[in-house]
Amino acid sequence: MKFSANKDDLLNGIKIVERATVVKGLQPVLANVLIETEGANQVKLTATDFDISIITLIDAHVEDEGKFTLPAKKLGEILSRLNDDLINLEFSDSAATITCKNSKFDIIGISANEFPRIEENISEDDCMEIETKPFAKAIRQVVSAAAGYETNNLLSGVVCEVNKNILEMAATDGNRLARVREVVQNKSADDEKPFEMLLSSRVLSELSKISLLTDSDSIKICKEKKKIVITIDKTKIVTNLMFGQFPKYNQLIPQSFPKEAVIDKYNLTSALERVAVMVSEKNSIVKFEFADNTLKLSGDSPEAGNSQDEIDIKYTGEPLAIAFNYKFILEFLKIAESEEVKVELNSPLSATVFAPVSDEDYIYLVMPVQLRG
Amino acid sequence: MKFSANKDDLLNGIKIVERATVVKGLQPVLANVLIETEGANQVKLTATDFDISIITLIDAHVEDEGKFTLPAKKLGEILSRLNDDLINLEFSDSAATITCKNSKFDIIGISANEFPRIEENISEDDCMEIETKPFAKAIRQVVSAAAGYETNNLLSGVVCEVNKNILEMAATDGNRLARVREVVQNKSADDEKPFEMLLSSRVLSELSKISLLTDSDSIKICKEKKKIVITIDKTKIVTNLMFGQFPKYNQLIPQSFPKEAVIDKYNLTSALERVAVMVSEKNSIVKFEFADNTLKLSGDSPEAGNSQDEIDIKYTGEPLAIAFNYKFILEFLKIAESEEVKVELNSPLSATVFAPVSDEDYIYLVMPVQLRG
Repeated sequence: MKFSANKDDLLNGIKIVERATVVKGLQPVLANVLIETEGANQVKLTATDFDISIITLIDAHVEDEGKFTLPAKKLGEILSRLNDDLINLEFSDSAATITCKNSKFDIIGISANEFPRIEENISEDDCMEIETKPFAKAIRQVVSAAAGYETNNLLSGVVCEVNKNILEMAATDGNRLARVREVVQNKSADDEKPFEMLLSSRVLSELSKISLLTDSDSIKICKEKKKIVITIDKTKIVTNLMFGQFPKYNQLIPQSFPKEAVIDKYNLTSALERVAVMVSEKNSIVKFEFADNTLKLSGDSPEAGNSQDEIDIKYTGEPLAIAFNYKFILEFLKIAESEEVKVELNSPLSATVFAPVSDEDYIYLVMPVQLRG
Repeated sequence: MKFSANKDDLLNGIKIVERATVVKGLQPVLANVLIETEGANQVKLTATDFDISIITLIDAHVEDEGKFTLPAKKLGEILSRLNDDLINLEFSDSAATITCKNSKFDIIGISANEFPRIEENISEDDCMEIETKPFAKAIRQVVSAAAGYETNNLLSGVVCEVNKNILEMAATDGNRLARVREVVQNKSADDEKPFEMLLSSRVLSELSKISLLTDSDSIKICKEKKKIVITIDKTKIVTNLMFGQFPKYNQLIPQSFPKEAVIDKYNLTSALERVAVMVSEKNSIVKFEFADNTLKLSGDSPEAGNSQDEIDIKYTGEPLAIAFNYKFILEFLKIAESEEVKVELNSPLSATVFAPVSDEDYIYLVMPVQLRG
């Protein structure tokens, strides 16, 4: 195999696929990227950890066809340090030679025969095409509320539904729940049947990062039995759908709240960060006391001491004391794109909803923590 | 004890002294900073790990005298998150209360009686006073050549000599040697006896960092038997001198070299970083081949492959192949403040001197590595 390519194209391709490599696994070939010529003008890069496979195409000038695998990390390190634009790659049985101006590298690789076969083709019967930006934004808004990534834990998944022109995405780890609704352009909007899928939060995080490295207005998603293929520009993510009964989260969201506070996001963030210095790492509890246009925050750590802070807010309801894991609230505040946030309250033990004041379609529900004493 | 202070003054003071705290040691009080009132307008902060003690004074409005210790890390975290300038501190037997506008913290501390006594006073018989900037620059130029910090290893020390108006500083770990000479203003320059000291590289690194946090043109250094006190602005570092026979390093530096190369620093740095991708982490060897105004660099890693690069240089001597630990060379290139560097060569196994072309007074000697085969 022999081809030449533009340095940035190849480096960008490696950056996209290397997210699926397994660096210190039992199979050394999974730390590598499979490089295959595709006709005279393209090279295909593939990496997989069996959970996710990422495939991307780059432009190249192919002189001799073939395929081979090379360590993704070394390849990325080399490419990022090269000065010139044009790179030549020539492959032998056990190594590749990269030349670029005065630089030359021989990299030991592994035969393409040892690389797992990835089936990227899928029936186009059940597909949807969605705008990249609102889809990637929705991912960022909900993904942190999912449970930590584990293959078989449904709560590490994100529910995603497109019904006509409405995208709804939600995730919950049992202690909090993020849900977003967005109006999107959906080229398959005529379909009567909504498009539904449950994907691992990890797949969606990777997709959101890849969307920043590519240059495409729309994402195409096709599913077939257990399998799903997400196509964005020249990149495909191949993975499995998650199956099972995801909690009926919309039933968990109270329809109305007797009390509402409106709080400046910056003030809340900085007061919470101050108070959190004196919170025990184990439970991360901060007490919120709402009364008379004032929010009093307090933290307590048996070993270190305690902390209190007070900020002006808009709140005219009955006084209410409630406690939260402050890390959940800070995560919401980091995502919320508005100057003010709304807190919708009921009682010290009932679900509380945080939302940006300017964006009615995004809510972040947090279960409070019971206060002792 | 009760006092008020400016937030930035107190935070800066904590940042200076906390470098000497011991975070996870056997004695919890060493993670704390000792806070003592000094008259009506100053507060003294002290931290120690027994190797180094750092003491600094800050301006304060003292209402009640006293002393107490508080955890340096928590205190720094709290101060850095406060919004307002004026901070009030009030101390009880077991805790301190910090108030600042709407924020209030109770921090659990440890009695000052448990804090070790640091003797900061020293006879002024053997002192020198030196300009801060050239002294701090000399530290940065040599300190990385010292061996890793160990209390009793002489090679982890830095030799420092002031003779009239000449400062000479040197460090070596046995594989490389950095030496710098600077003309400095020395207020005790009339002394006939040069001022000499061997200090641990760690003390000098701390001093160089503290010099960036303070605002003083000169550093005063006094020694007495084993002890040394370094005063910079309102901060004192108290530590011990190292004793023993430091290598006679000036004898190790060849007086003349038959071959000399002049190399663009940027080109050498980037070529070396490229070639180093394919160098085994264990020995870090890069081969340098000088010939005909060209430098060829090559690396080899049994597992990963090999690399070669070539740059144009000024070199008209006999061809010479020599190998170095590339990390030493990159460290020198990072410190050297010039566009071109000079490499003075003798034979493949003899000491080689790297120096910035514009700065004759700084040299970085590196022992080559023997090439196999």
